[in-house]
Amino acid sequence: MEAFSEEKNDVFVPQKIFMQRAIELAKRGGGKVHPNPLVGAVIEKDGKIIAEGFHHEYGNLHAERDALKNAAEKNACVRGANLYVTLEPCCHTGKQPPCTQAIIDAGIKNVVIGSRDPNSLVNGKGVAQLENAGIKIFRDFMKAECDSLNEIFFYYITAKRPFVIVKYAQSADGKTSLSSGESKWITNESSREYVHYLRGTTAAVMCGIQTVLKDDPLLTCRIKGEELNQPVRIVLDTELKIPLESNLVKTANEVPLIIFTCSDSAKKSALEEKGAKVIQIEKKDSHIDILQVLKKLGEFSIDSVLVESGGSLNSSLFFYGKEKKCLVNKVLCFVAPKILGGINGTVHSPVQGIECSSLLSCVNLALKNVKTFSGDLLLEYDFKEPCLEE
Amino acid sequence: MEAFSEEKNDVFVPQKIFMQRAIELAKRGGGKVHPNPLVGAVIEKDGKIIAEGFHHEYGNLHAERDALKNAAEKNACVRGANLYVTLEPCCHTGKQPPCTQAIIDAGIKNVVIGSRDPNSLVNGKGVAQLENAGIKIFRDFMKAECDSLNEIFFYYITAKRPFVIVKYAQSADGKTSLSSGESKWITNESSREYVHYLRGTTAAVMCGIQTVLKDDPLLTCRIKGEELNQPVRIVLDTELKIPLESNLVKTANEVPLIIFTCSDSAKKSALEEKGAKVIQIEKKDSHIDILQVLKKLGEFSIDSVLVESGGSLNSSLFFYGKEKKCLVNKVLCFVAPKILGGINGTVHSPVQGIECSSLLSCVNLALKNVKTFSGDLLLEYDFKEPCLEE
Repeated sequence: MEAFSEEKNDVFVPQKIFMQRAIELAKRGGGKVHPNPLVGAVIEKDGKIIAEGFHHEYGNLHAERDALKNAAEKNACVRGANLYVTLEPCCHTGKQPPCTQAIIDAGIKNVVIGSRDPNSLVNGKGVAQLENAGIKIFRDFMKAECDSLNEIFFYYITAKRPFVIVKYAQSADGKTSLSSGESKWITNESSREYVHYLRGTTAAVMCGIQTVLKDDPLLTCRIKGEELNQPVRIVLDTELKIPLESNLVKTANEVPLIIFTCSDSAKKSALEEKGAKVIQIEKKDSHIDILQVLKKLGEFSIDSVLVESGGSLNSSLFFYGKEKKCLVNKVLCFVAPKILGGINGTVHSPVQGIECSSLLSCVNLALKNVKTFSGDLLLEYDFKEPCLEE
Repeated sequence: MEAFSEEKNDVFVPQKIFMQRAIELAKRGGGKVHPNPLVGAVIEKDGKIIAEGFHHEYGNLHAERDALKNAAEKNACVRGANLYVTLEPCCHTGKQPPCTQAIIDAGIKNVVIGSRDPNSLVNGKGVAQLENAGIKIFRDFMKAECDSLNEIFFYYITAKRPFVIVKYAQSADGKTSLSSGESKWITNESSREYVHYLRGTTAAVMCGIQTVLKDDPLLTCRIKGEELNQPVRIVLDTELKIPLESNLVKTANEVPLIIFTCSDSAKKSALEEKGAKVIQIEKKDSHIDILQVLKKLGEFSIDSVLVESGGSLNSSLFFYGKEKKCLVNKVLCFVAPKILGGINGTVHSPVQGIECSSLLSCVNLALKNVKTFSGDLLLEYDFKEPCLEE
């Protein structure tokens, strides 16, 4: 195996091809592995890929074992081969036995690793086990690319609450609806289809009761021909106003529905009879305490939440509590090529209810990506300093 | 000269290099030629550029004559050469004698033309004169690229009023300021510097009286080290409230200031003494009739207006009169990577005051370009069907 020289960016590094392939493989698990990370693996010998694998679905084989199994199935000899894996191999027994042992047993010679595993059960221990068995390790190879596969996993495993993605759609002049409430549709069909893809790759979708009463949404993932997971649907409903005949409640037996409320009304059992899960949460400033909701979701192994709501819930996520802390990790802002104008005093914008105290204390984002959907734009922003404490 | 084959996009067309060069040259006149078009010219012989020229400044030599002069100065023989020019050569006497005669006299053999001249004084007549003199003409070569040099000129010459560019800066959640009015600064320094460049390349800059009273702007072009034109500054001030000690009025003797008003107050002469031009315009729906203002500016040879104002003036430009006609040709929307939130009822957005009647009758734009300025975005939109009538 040739020496690694990732620093020399002007030099062609052939190993990059194998890790790039492992990254592509990892992505195939999108929407199916959570709360596990996406992982891909490639076994290479003499410059040729002899087997590939990835983590297909939560509870199934890890990427390394999947690749070794595929090698075995076609009688490829992996002894002395190189393994490229996007994340440090695990060394503990969870739903699956440790991957390190399988790698050692197979006689792999070199292991090239992308991301480090922040899970305290693994973190460096996997590498140590492999090294002790005489395997040569190359760490942090194409780390940034590999890390970006699993921003959700890395956050969830550390913060123990879901990675929060706030998605909204506005006109080019910042409106989410007309003053009458008319909002169908600001964005075009391709943008709206992409939202279904987003739902299918996120563990849960959340909205506030106002959105339920106004739009009566289903919040399911509806993409023809593609098999994606259905997200758990979450409604924040302080006074338990959700209609029993709403689309969400009517489908609660098919796709999970969790309603968070501060009310102890008798309606709770009626909703539960229809298949919904109702959870009581303390009030904070006359609303549901949204941080408590997120912590609860973390306990339910929900690693990510796509918030598709109005200005009010959005603003309580961006400006939580007295200190106006930001609980949002990512913003997905669709911008449609339209000017709606507005009537003073009745403007509907994506984040309103709570305001930052001054421009200096606003929520700062970092632009990560810009996509276009037939004229609509999708601006992807990361929160600059995710709030991990509390 | 080889046959032209622009349709065959897969074939390398060497002539493109010469027209591309002419386009680059044309751009050098940016901000200095209005209300004339930007034009560039290249004289080529045996595959080599022997002279170049462009329209430097309003009133000076046209591009074709500039190129011929440059050829003469270095004793280059242009007889039998090919001329590449981004716009149909003129055949009438304006500030300058007709270019067609100079081309004929010089013995140019072939003329390759990008844009057609919509000016009814030229439009096809220039080409006819050249052809009658035995010169071979290739029209519409790289027409789209050449046309985009002069979108302002083409609009102005047809509509006889300025091309209207509405520029605004908003947070990622669509706010132009906090409810307190605080708005310094939403965007970063590089974005704000680019605004000065925009001012320097537009004939006029316009704002409403509210912006004057709130921000006391200068509206001049301030870029270090670059020589750009100062735009004429225009204020819409229905009741003539502009303070005599405002920055705009104080500098009216250095950079032109035009105030449009519906008032006939005695303040008019005080303002005129300070160097401002005050023009009275009829009222329409209790405000200055903005279409009359634009027509007046057209008469003053102002071909383009950059509107840097608040929601109120912007909304009256997007939704003019009873029929809510759009008078805007281009939207420049800066988006800063910030979330401000907002307080219901006091949200400040870039276009508000007048609202579209329904989503179906909103103003439709076409996304033209996306630029980044250190994390800020500049979304450039064209109005889909510019309203030329009235």
